[in-house]
Amino acid sequence: MQRILNTPETVIEDMLDGFVKANGHLVKRVTCDSANSRGVIAAKDAPVPGKVGIVTGGGSGHKPAFIGYVGKNMCDAAAVGEIFSSPTALAFLEAFRAADGGAGVACLYGNYSGDNMNVKMAVKAAKREGIQVKTVIANDDVASAPKDQSEKRRGVAGEILMWKCAGAKAALGGNLDEVIQAADKAIRHTHSIGIGLTPCTLPGSAHPNFTIQEGTMEVGIGHHGEPGIEVCPLENAAGIARRMVGAVLPDEPFRKGDQVVVLLSGLGATPMLELYVLYNEIEKLLMGEGLLIHRSYVGNYFTSLDMMGATLTVMKTDEELRALIDLDAECAGFSQSSPT
Amino acid sequence: MQRILNTPETVIEDMLDGFVKANGHLVKRVTCDSANSRGVIAAKDAPVPGKVGIVTGGGSGHKPAFIGYVGKNMCDAAAVGEIFSSPTALAFLEAFRAADGGAGVACLYGNYSGDNMNVKMAVKAAKREGIQVKTVIANDDVASAPKDQSEKRRGVAGEILMWKCAGAKAALGGNLDEVIQAADKAIRHTHSIGIGLTPCTLPGSAHPNFTIQEGTMEVGIGHHGEPGIEVCPLENAAGIARRMVGAVLPDEPFRKGDQVVVLLSGLGATPMLELYVLYNEIEKLLMGEGLLIHRSYVGNYFTSLDMMGATLTVMKTDEELRALIDLDAECAGFSQSSPT
Repeated sequence: MQRILNTPETVIEDMLDGFVKANGHLVKRVTCDSANSRGVIAAKDAPVPGKVGIVTGGGSGHKPAFIGYVGKNMCDAAAVGEIFSSPTALAFLEAFRAADGGAGVACLYGNYSGDNMNVKMAVKAAKREGIQVKTVIANDDVASAPKDQSEKRRGVAGEILMWKCAGAKAALGGNLDEVIQAADKAIRHTHSIGIGLTPCTLPGSAHPNFTIQEGTMEVGIGHHGEPGIEVCPLENAAGIARRMVGAVLPDEPFRKGDQVVVLLSGLGATPMLELYVLYNEIEKLLMGEGLLIHRSYVGNYFTSLDMMGATLTVMKTDEELRALIDLDAECAGFSQSSPT
Repeated sequence: MQRILNTPETVIEDMLDGFVKANGHLVKRVTCDSANSRGVIAAKDAPVPGKVGIVTGGGSGHKPAFIGYVGKNMCDAAAVGEIFSSPTALAFLEAFRAADGGAGVACLYGNYSGDNMNVKMAVKAAKREGIQVKTVIANDDVASAPKDQSEKRRGVAGEILMWKCAGAKAALGGNLDEVIQAADKAIRHTHSIGIGLTPCTLPGSAHPNFTIQEGTMEVGIGHHGEPGIEVCPLENAAGIARRMVGAVLPDEPFRKGDQVVVLLSGLGATPMLELYVLYNEIEKLLMGEGLLIHRSYVGNYFTSLDMMGATLTVMKTDEELRALIDLDAECAGFSQSSPT
């Protein structure tokens, strides 16, 4: 494989060092108690006294998620796992400590068994230290289970909109319950689906960790290559857009006049040119359904190493969520000014 | 090839439509006189009366360049060419018209024969309309010709730092000569080199448009796959960093204590994780040489479709250039707040 690496064993350390060096105006490295916990990235000014801390975390390989969302008006700290593996409980605990300014911590993460287990342990340990942590688990991937089994659904790129809303709520002075409510409202109205065109390859592997045949695409693929709901012949951009929109819209269900936020993320190796071609088709379909697009984000926001493909995320907003989405933010993976 | 497209014939139109829809708060499409000119993207508020207009342009396939640098405190308009082809003279002329607020236009573009020819024609036509245009041609690619033949050197990712400095100068009220001087100073002190790990494939092609053998890398590769100066066995991140830094530093030459801006761009299909691993090694080498890193940018800033690899750009700064680099900016490909 054609990769830019030193050794597979050091890839996370090397990446974290490079990340902090490149973004030293926004973030800092938190030294951990244990060599077992790979590391924690915290906002430069964390913890902010009196502000609810926003924590996330997850496996590596999804850049800019998760550490790229640590910064101004977004997350205060992120726990870092190995490639496609949950951070340890200790890493989550360190992240809680780094983010807690005395007003409690909202831990907002994706629905994977390792993360669930480790967050639960860390929350208990934090309680013993007097840090109150409440959690919201993202489960926006509509392809990962039927709607009536949403507790089985995975969290994917919709997490970004959850962090955005909760981060803004905390920055605006919301208390822990208000921040948790904002995060919960955001993710409950957020629906995502991924389509994969190529597999991805773990650093140090000679071969991809699964297969997508040339000329086919996998609809509903997960962020780690979890099987989708259908493998079908590769379609053109309009066809891919129809499948994505067709999977996402019935899930809310979205209705004419709904004001939505749209996030279209490449999976790592998709050229931006193609993302814009795809967004053009998606926008036509959403407008055709009478939806009003409040904001849209097109880029590599939540990736799967070098996978080709994209995820579409659509969030239904109300006035509160729109105001939270619109607040300015600055972090390595996501920057915006307030609307002028 | 696994691509998200409708037809190769419509890829530029589809992409431009998607781009403007996704970034309607920042940019607008300029309708052109002629079907021959693919299009022009202008900042939403362009032209700004009394402000020098900043124009760039180039072939498509380099997203977010060129159109992703149109926005607040950066470029006012960009002319769009076909994939890897210069925009037409008419497109450049339309971009001048869209950017001219009565204080003249600085056209800042890369050193390619098609662009040189078309800009020259457009400048003449603009003069007949009473629009004064001055140009600076970027030639930051140190691998494309020896230093004493810098007029033969190609412009690559260093153009971004030129646009940043000139855009800031214009935003701060600089007149046309002052803006041109800032752009010229920026690019004269900017040095880049690319390393390619895979070739790229034009939309609609079944095969890559050149070859890089598995297990090798091409040092000094151009943004369109122009041959580099050496094909050698693929090295680890530390080795790649040594080659990049070794090529760039002697070219200024950079000296201990110099304050530099560093831009490390992926070429399209390089996972962010690997860019941070590479940046970590580059930073060590620059620090080892006694350079002071004023700011660094790591991301996909100037790409070559789906090529794997990266370009390193280092700019020597003085007080003026640092102030210009530090000004806030917001465009699709590049956003930053002013330092606080």
